Amino acid sequence: MTTIQDLLAPRSVAVIGASDDPTRIGGRPIAYMRAAGYEGRLIPVNPNRSTVQGLAAVPSVMDIDGTIDFALIAVPAKHVAQTIRDAGAKGAKAALCFSSGFAEMGEAGAALEVEVIRAARETGVRLIGPNCLGAFNAETGFIPCFSSALERGAPITGGLAIVSQSGAYGSHIYWLARQRGLGTRYFMTTGNEADVGVSEVIGLMADDPDVHCIMAYAEGIRNGPQLIESLEKARAARKPVFVMKVGRSAVGAAAASSHTASLAGEDAVHDAILRQHGAVRVRTTEEMLDAADAARTRVYPVGNRLGVVTISGGAGVLIADEADARGLDVAPMPEDAQAELREILPFAAPRNPVDVTAQAFNDLNLVTLFLQKMIERGDYDSLLCFWTSVAGSAIMADKLLAAMRAGIAGQKGLLVVQSIIADAAVTKRYTDDGYPVFEDPSRAVAAIDALTRAGMAFAAGRPVMPPVPAPAALPDGPLTEGVAAAALAIAGVPMATAALACSAGDAAALAAAAGGPVAIKIASPDIAHKTDAGGVALGVAPEDAAAAFDAMMIRVRGHAPDAVIEGALISAMAPPGVDLILGAKTDPAFGPVVMVGLGGVFAEVFHDVAFRRAPVTHGVALEMLRSLRGWPLLDGARGAALADVDAAAAAVSALSIFAASQGAAIDSVEINPLRVLPAGQGALGLDALIVRGG
Amino acid sequence: MTTIQDLLAPRSVAVIGASDDPTRIGGRPIAYMRAAGYEGRLIPVNPNRSTVQGLAAVPSVMDIDGTIDFALIAVPAKHVAQTIRDAGAKGAKAALCFSSGFAEMGEAGAALEVEVIRAARETGVRLIGPNCLGAFNAETGFIPCFSSALERGAPITGGLAIVSQSGAYGSHIYWLARQRGLGTRYFMTTGNEADVGVSEVIGLMADDPDVHCIMAYAEGIRNGPQLIESLEKARAARKPVFVMKVGRSAVGAAAASSHTASLAGEDAVHDAILRQHGAVRVRTTEEMLDAADAARTRVYPVGNRLGVVTISGGAGVLIADEADARGLDVAPMPEDAQAELREILPFAAPRNPVDVTAQAFNDLNLVTLFLQKMIERGDYDSLLCFWTSVAGSAIMADKLLAAMRAGIAGQKGLLVVQSIIADAAVTKRYTDDGYPVFEDPSRAVAAIDALTRAGMAFAAGRPVMPPVPAPAALPDGPLTEGVAAAALAIAGVPMATAALACSAGDAAALAAAAGGPVAIKIASPDIAHKTDAGGVALGVAPEDAAAAFDAMMIRVRGHAPDAVIEGALISAMAPPGVDLILGAKTDPAFGPVVMVGLGGVFAEVFHDVAFRRAPVTHGVALEMLRSLRGWPLLDGARGAALADVDAAAAAVSALSIFAASQGAAIDSVEINPLRVLPAGQGALGLDALIVRGG
Repeated sequence: MTTIQDLLAPRSVAVIGASDDPTRIGGRPIAYMRAAGYEGRLIPVNPNRSTVQGLAAVPSVMDIDGTIDFALIAVPAKHVAQTIRDAGAKGAKAALCFSSGFAEMGEAGAALEVEVIRAARETGVRLIGPNCLGAFNAETGFIPCFSSALERGAPITGGLAIVSQSGAYGSHIYWLARQRGLGTRYFMTTGNEADVGVSEVIGLMADDPDVHCIMAYAEGIRNGPQLIESLEKARAARKPVFVMKVGRSAVGAAAASSHTASLAGEDAVHDAILRQHGAVRVRTTEEMLDAADAARTRVYPVGNRLGVVTISGGAGVLIADEADARGLDVAPMPEDAQAELREILPFAAPRNPVDVTAQAFNDLNLVTLFLQKMIERGDYDSLLCFWTSVAGSAIMADKLLAAMRAGIAGQKGLLVVQSIIADAAVTKRYTDDGYPVFEDPSRAVAAIDALTRAGMAFAAGRPVMPPVPAPAALPDGPLTEGVAAAALAIAGVPMATAALACSAGDAAALAAAAGGPVAIKIASPDIAHKTDAGGVALGVAPEDAAAAFDAMMIRVRGHAPDAVIEGALISAMAPPGVDLILGAKTDPAFGPVVMVGLGGVFAEVFHDVAFRRAPVTHGVALEMLRSLRGWPLLDGARGAALADVDAAAAAVSALSIFAASQGAAIDSVEINPLRVLPAGQGALGLDALIVRGG
Repeated sequence: MTTIQDLLAPRSVAVIGASDDPTRIGGRPIAYMRAAGYEGRLIPVNPNRSTVQGLAAVPSVMDIDGTIDFALIAVPAKHVAQTIRDAGAKGAKAALCFSSGFAEMGEAGAALEVEVIRAARETGVRLIGPNCLGAFNAETGFIPCFSSALERGAPITGGLAIVSQSGAYGSHIYWLARQRGLGTRYFMTTGNEADVGVSEVIGLMADDPDVHCIMAYAEGIRNGPQLIESLEKARAARKPVFVMKVGRSAVGAAAASSHTASLAGEDAVHDAILRQHGAVRVRTTEEMLDAADAARTRVYPVGNRLGVVTISGGAGVLIADEADARGLDVAPMPEDAQAELREILPFAAPRNPVDVTAQAFNDLNLVTLFLQKMIERGDYDSLLCFWTSVAGSAIMADKLLAAMRAGIAGQKGLLVVQSIIADAAVTKRYTDDGYPVFEDPSRAVAAIDALTRAGMAFAAGRPVMPPVPAPAALPDGPLTEGVAAAALAIAGVPMATAALACSAGDAAALAAAAGGPVAIKIASPDIAHKTDAGGVALGVAPEDAAAAFDAMMIRVRGHAPDAVIEGALISAMAPPGVDLILGAKTDPAFGPVVMVGLGGVFAEVFHDVAFRRAPVTHGVALEMLRSLRGWPLLDGARGAALADVDAAAAAVSALSIFAASQGAAIDSVEINPLRVLPAGQGALGLDALIVRGG
């Protein structure tokens, strides 16, 4: 088992391609490590110099006296594989490769990368990169990194760890954290991720006792299962993982795939899976840094009730808006507690946001009393105090801090955030008392939201996955609708029964047996889009079934003259209900995922669908249904009868278990629609499509 | 006509309720004005002291020798009206009242406010407040304000103007602007807006030649027409108005109405009208300040094409995501221009975001060449450059600035924003060259978005409103569905024809005349929700019409035994099509507004509706339809026939003109559904409801 210490705490380092010039890529790490007081052995390797930056150099790795723990590689791409083999021979456990010219540079580069991977596997050397900007361990001053941000000073250690696929952007994030005084214990950029990747490193960082908060930047996920294990390690250790996963937009995803060898996965799927496994996804760099800043408190609210105390009604409204947009609940104080606050201060607005008015600064006891009351009676998971610039004077700060301390006394698990404007020295008094501080109250709300998402993920724990049975073998031959429906029915998805009519006579007989209007659908292994081909007739009376069958055959043959047509499926028309679309597919990074959405245009035009990694329990399936914006349509909106959501959830769960059991044997499954009948009457899949996996 | 100078540039000021203590509310303005070098005459009024802060005081306003221009009032609420009368008698043109205890404090306070308003009207004194924190004119040092933010230094003048309904939050915004070095020419908080309000002040600020950018904070809009005129003045003068209108959420709106006398209007309506009249609404304080910061360039892009040049592919993806979310178009470079960039630098990503790679810093000529090519060939309205901390060294900054200058030379109308990390001195080199600078690239994108929205609003100009005819008198008596439909048909909204059946025999005859299935709908002035009352039957065959009529009468009488029932309306079933909901209502602030959305659940569950101030032209009605997320349903999504969007737009425009002409005579109108038939076949209103105005 590799640890972060195995990668980033070597006692001896060979710098291969070392430069005497401390401004060059091969020179900077040496200069940085010496400035940072790295105490391990530092061996420059350079065939043309006997000393490098004052250190004795050797011409090649094999000339090194004794063993090395780590190889830092800054030689042309074509020499990297051999360098790794040499380093392995000298005992290196890990290597980091700055060099570019690999998979990011087309086929020839990709071939070189395969060689490098083979060298690393065969020698057991764990490889960071290639094509990466580097890493550091702030505690030991080990800095195999050429980021120019490090020219401005050695890293300051702390509880933060940063891992990024992008070198330049990782470095950008690191330097912004440093400017805020956020100490970074470990920093790593992973470049092409030939071996070590973000998915693994998050877990290594989570395992390290000195790390309490992780920031990750990713463009594409390469190893989904490993990422899940890493996120679950972090969750179990109660360490938040703030993730910037870019490539949300189509244009962003295009940019991502053009510049790295990663393929940005489908964002909606990855978003759901990251959330499912406890990661806290953030949208901007500032949001991530604000969250990490607030995480210094190590207080993670386990509920979303936000109490707001303010001296400005206007700020209260603004905060309530932002909280609402983020799903935090600015729940009102109980009526009687409001009356008690009004007794203390008649012109206060005691509902929540609680406006204690500027009178608070004339009588700081009000601050204490109001906070006490909010904590005792409001049942809030976090508090946001808006004091603006008034709290920025040093004299006022001391008094206000004392008043708050008296009000909050002993509330260890309560997150309390301040929105004030103050200079650095006064701000420090607040942060020293354990309060995150933000000038902009909207940023304060965003940070509370991020910590709340972390806290709720910690409380929820790892999702329970239902057991997956051995896969039922799919029938040989084409997976027509009838075959697909039968396979799904066996798997427990309720499907409407249909029978194959091979002639107009069959159709008439089957329709007569159905005893009412029927649906007639073309049965052909070659026609996936039946409606487009004229292959669907709905609500056909039994007496018209024969004619409808014949007309359909003519239409479909006109549309698809070469298609093999087996006949048409005849089924009784389903009773009215709410139509869902159910789907499952194999995500390249995470494997089987299941999807559910409101049917038809809701899914297509409004993208109102929910995803989870398959399989899901009945409970998670219900949660997926409830997360749809269209949920009120199932839940009896507009006086409609309640739909059988339990049957719908059971179908989603059954489909997810089917997809998980089949794994790569299937590419995708779609049930469109699943007609959900009124409560107690079940659900019926009316059409099914299974596409075999590659 | 009042000007901002009339309000905020007096030559003599009486401070009524002046305090000798410079830390008290009645003392601060005197201290602030003297510190800021106010050169006008400053007359403290205090019945108990002969001097105040070293200035000769008089016991009452009437004791002032000569005239005054301005009265600053800090006396108890009950004395304010008389004080205004006295000030008027002494020649005051304007007054500002700090005192609270008015409309914000219940009925007794509201009565006092009425008196104050009367005193101001009768004397012609323009009144700011009451219950406000104050205002200032940074140019003259006139500071009738008690914000403690001003203790930290006199305001610095500049091209910015700030107006806020909230005193504390206005002050918060001002101080954040000051910390950024944004000079604020005028600052005003409007408190209860008994006379002067945000709606008017925006226009006064827009008229002032020294102001080039306005920031407004509002909780509720009191005078919609005045706000519109103010916004249009600002648009005509090409001065952006960045608006924080809080109370977006239900909880925010509740907080707003609890703490001020304003009623927060319906947010969706106000959002649409603000946009229609050129305001740039922002969500957070930071976004507003960032926009104002970037507006120092006074460059407002007239299109949304964003070119991105970056040394980090990762940052490029992140920027593309953010731009996409905000509706900016990260349009690719033309294919041949991409090839030319690849010739210059083979491993560049030339699409857009254009990744010039870190090689740019080794060869700054690349920066010049890439920028030239992007400007010549990309047709971008704005450019965002991501250089991270590398651009933060002073030596690099000078070289990079020269390279950019050479690349951008002469592009006066192009907005170019930099995302770099640098200390204040180096940052200043960039801002001195005319570039807004942001560490976080997402914030840079938000600022470009805000300036683009301003530029596009300037280019669009004031919306043309169609002429409004004299209102057709609504018939006396109850506005039944039949009457409403007839009134709307006369106004040009296409309505399905229906005839009243008073008996089962009538129903049968009318259905037979229709020659196909009919809709039967109860006709009763007492039943608004016909479906709920069992008063709608659809697709009734002519031979079943008599029985259906009788059954409906029994059902409806069971449901509403006391309702007056006139009979039932019989109409031919409409052909299939796409259902819209059309509505109009009278907004308390802005008057008649028109609404359109996809019908049924789309409007109700997805809130997919568009609003505009009525009346609207055909063109604006089309724009409303296109802005719906459900637009693809009208535009032939899923192979459906194109709907007759022209007919739908004509109906929206006709309804809007009807609503505008009726004005307060109607409270609301709803056409639900308007069935939009396939292209060329028109549209048909199938149900109508008109509610008379109060």
